[in-house]
Amino acid sequence: MGLVIDFIQPVPLEKELTEKLEKAIQSLASPGDADKDMEETAEYVMSRCVNTSHPHFLNQLYGGVHPMGLAAAYIVEKMNTNAHTYEVAPVFVLTERIILKKLRLLFFGNEDGDGIFAPGGSMANMYGYTLARHRYFPDAKQKGLFNLPPLVLYTSQDSHYSASKAANWMGLGLENVVKIKTNRFGAMIPMELEAAIKKNRAEGKIPLVVNATAGTTVLGAFDDLESIADICKRENLWLHCDAAWGGSFIFSERLRAENMKGIEKCDSIAWNAHKMLGAPLQCSIFITKEPDCLSKCNSLSASYLFQPDKYYPVEYDRSGDKSFQCGRKPDAFKLWFMWVALGTKGFQQLVEKAEDCARYISEKISSRDDCILYLDKHQCTNVFFWYVPPRLQGLDKTEAWWTELGEVTRKIKEKMVQEGDMMIGYSPLPHKNIPNAIRLVIPAYPPKSHADMDFVLEKIFSLGKDF
Amino acid sequence: MGLVIDFIQPVPLEKELTEKLEKAIQSLASPGDADKDMEETAEYVMSRCVNTSHPHFLNQLYGGVHPMGLAAAYIVEKMNTNAHTYEVAPVFVLTERIILKKLRLLFFGNEDGDGIFAPGGSMANMYGYTLARHRYFPDAKQKGLFNLPPLVLYTSQDSHYSASKAANWMGLGLENVVKIKTNRFGAMIPMELEAAIKKNRAEGKIPLVVNATAGTTVLGAFDDLESIADICKRENLWLHCDAAWGGSFIFSERLRAENMKGIEKCDSIAWNAHKMLGAPLQCSIFITKEPDCLSKCNSLSASYLFQPDKYYPVEYDRSGDKSFQCGRKPDAFKLWFMWVALGTKGFQQLVEKAEDCARYISEKISSRDDCILYLDKHQCTNVFFWYVPPRLQGLDKTEAWWTELGEVTRKIKEKMVQEGDMMIGYSPLPHKNIPNAIRLVIPAYPPKSHADMDFVLEKIFSLGKDF
Repeated sequence: MGLVIDFIQPVPLEKELTEKLEKAIQSLASPGDADKDMEETAEYVMSRCVNTSHPHFLNQLYGGVHPMGLAAAYIVEKMNTNAHTYEVAPVFVLTERIILKKLRLLFFGNEDGDGIFAPGGSMANMYGYTLARHRYFPDAKQKGLFNLPPLVLYTSQDSHYSASKAANWMGLGLENVVKIKTNRFGAMIPMELEAAIKKNRAEGKIPLVVNATAGTTVLGAFDDLESIADICKRENLWLHCDAAWGGSFIFSERLRAENMKGIEKCDSIAWNAHKMLGAPLQCSIFITKEPDCLSKCNSLSASYLFQPDKYYPVEYDRSGDKSFQCGRKPDAFKLWFMWVALGTKGFQQLVEKAEDCARYISEKISSRDDCILYLDKHQCTNVFFWYVPPRLQGLDKTEAWWTELGEVTRKIKEKMVQEGDMMIGYSPLPHKNIPNAIRLVIPAYPPKSHADMDFVLEKIFSLGKDF
Repeated sequence: MGLVIDFIQPVPLEKELTEKLEKAIQSLASPGDADKDMEETAEYVMSRCVNTSHPHFLNQLYGGVHPMGLAAAYIVEKMNTNAHTYEVAPVFVLTERIILKKLRLLFFGNEDGDGIFAPGGSMANMYGYTLARHRYFPDAKQKGLFNLPPLVLYTSQDSHYSASKAANWMGLGLENVVKIKTNRFGAMIPMELEAAIKKNRAEGKIPLVVNATAGTTVLGAFDDLESIADICKRENLWLHCDAAWGGSFIFSERLRAENMKGIEKCDSIAWNAHKMLGAPLQCSIFITKEPDCLSKCNSLSASYLFQPDKYYPVEYDRSGDKSFQCGRKPDAFKLWFMWVALGTKGFQQLVEKAEDCARYISEKISSRDDCILYLDKHQCTNVFFWYVPPRLQGLDKTEAWWTELGEVTRKIKEKMVQEGDMMIGYSPLPHKNIPNAIRLVIPAYPPKSHADMDFVLEKIFSLGKDF
């Protein structure tokens, strides 16, 4: 299967890549005969890339690109245009409208609402928070935040950092991002949320929006959306769900029912098709139940682009005006093309297969004496565990012992990358006082087999046994 | 050369594209035998796209994708990864570092500073405004804007709407975006800027940042950066330059000297290589002279991603932590690859050729009685003009006459799209009380010839003569 990575240190590689550019900057020759050289250059750089399409790349919340996604991405690149008007992007503007409708139907049970493709999950989440602000404080569009009491965004301790990044850029400030305590599974504790809202109101702050998570980054936890939605309704807060990672479970009725009950009650949802599902990076979706809100929040009606006197219905240019961006990659087309090729059933098979592999390897880990599986189960397709090498087996699990185990985990990763035939991440969970553990995540493409799981587990044992 | 566009109305096309997806959603068949069908689907959708790589696509501030850029884009899509850590994107992280250094050297005359690739010019501009805010109000990262006096962003009447979109999202509010009057060329009037700053200070507001433009969207105007930089220095404001469109002139010493004097004095610059230069969409650059400021403004140091105990120097992961985004397309690689292939000289030839065509067609327009060239010249590669059909020639230029001419312009566009062998935009300039005019813009790729210019001009005459 070849290597996942042929690792070299950054300094020599940087030198080589710099020299190639330097030569081109200095060159006085006319360009045009470069094709042959560039073929070699292309092969060279690809050989130095990480092979994310390898079945043993289990390092990030994304993996290989599905061939149908790659074909669609090539079409997008080749047709080189912007998804801002029907005039220049008829197919891309329409496939975005169509996909957003189908996704609202799937997530909310209703086609109505609004939505847009965004460059990544962080931006998709920020769309949610800006809409929340606009719903309750529409005047802020004109006046800014200067005369308002602090607006508060709630998110769990285990949630993705994009909530904080957005709060910074939106002028809310990090101290108005309240991180709600999670249970040992990594899911937000609804009672803690409720208490925080009451406390902030008492302080004169204004609770604005809850950012729930479906599939946290490290543990794969799904927040209890039913309970959180009840609180948001009662307290009159916008409920956004960051389903960037776990959202792909929507294509399996079983996995949806087991993990995402209440998702249809959220006001807005962000989902990355480029994560679990194997769409090409970037393919990030933002949808909301609230109709026409994106235009109201973001529109400025630029006259040079969105002429009201066009030769086709101007509603087809609305996606450009709804967007924060002006130029925007037609990312929706990639999902449209994959969905047409694979069908809902194909998507279902992909995610169920990935979840099955997570279940298989978790059970295997949990049955062994030389492994510790955090939580005794997997969540989403995340498996969080430690391998305990012989010298640490059978000892008291003191704080020093755990620290040592975290160090073993780090060393396993380092050796893994040197050998290069697989790639799996590790992470501590500082707020739970948990040292480095192996975080194995299983993206759905390319499909993995039980044999792949056996391989990576045996490999971890062999990498770690002498540490 | 084929058509630029084979126009059909959105409704029938939407129906067709919806049905294809609907079938896949309903299908109970196993996917896998879809390849043949998908080849047909791919060909069908491409036939319905606009051919932006046609030399007569002069409709937007971008055009065809350069083959070397397309090759690089394919590599990026195929290697499907995120530019956030060296671990998963060695080549892409390094080419970004290298390119940013070379661009700082080119624009600022010094490699030092900071920078990042962003998904589009609007985001690149927002990086500039957020850094400005962080320089003067670092506490806002923690506390938000709630206790501050209004912060003001200055931009010209002719500037791109992204300044306003950013002010909305950043919580500054649209009323704190002060649009400075432009001269008839569309360039900001420095004295008006100075007066506005004084007025706002007197009102108790805090002037924060000036957004100057190098190459405005409609007229192609270059703001007087020398004078604006003097004002910003004196008044202690951050100077950001939106060079998304005109920035490509940096590769020609002559065009730089004629248009962008003072660019090196800006604190930060946004430039889109995917606009004039023919890099694939998206390829947007943000650079600043101020070292380490992006991390200070944006970093949250997520422990699961940016482990401090890695097996290579962690400074190579800094780009991930500097970014607003978490996942981020490795857009820098496309520019690196093109630059290696074409050299600085190749870029110079491309932009000088485009500017030469703009000069050629402008002179031709200006020599004719049946055309009116606004400004009697081109700016950047923008040509803004009217064709006057026989029935309107020789009449008094009353307000009604101009309105009628604007209507003729609109009709020319409509007929142009129906015939499909070329595509050129039109725009009014409401703040200058200018009705719809033809806005012909010349991206550098594919290279255009004088014959192309003759063709489009003759075609406009033939389209418009009976209106």
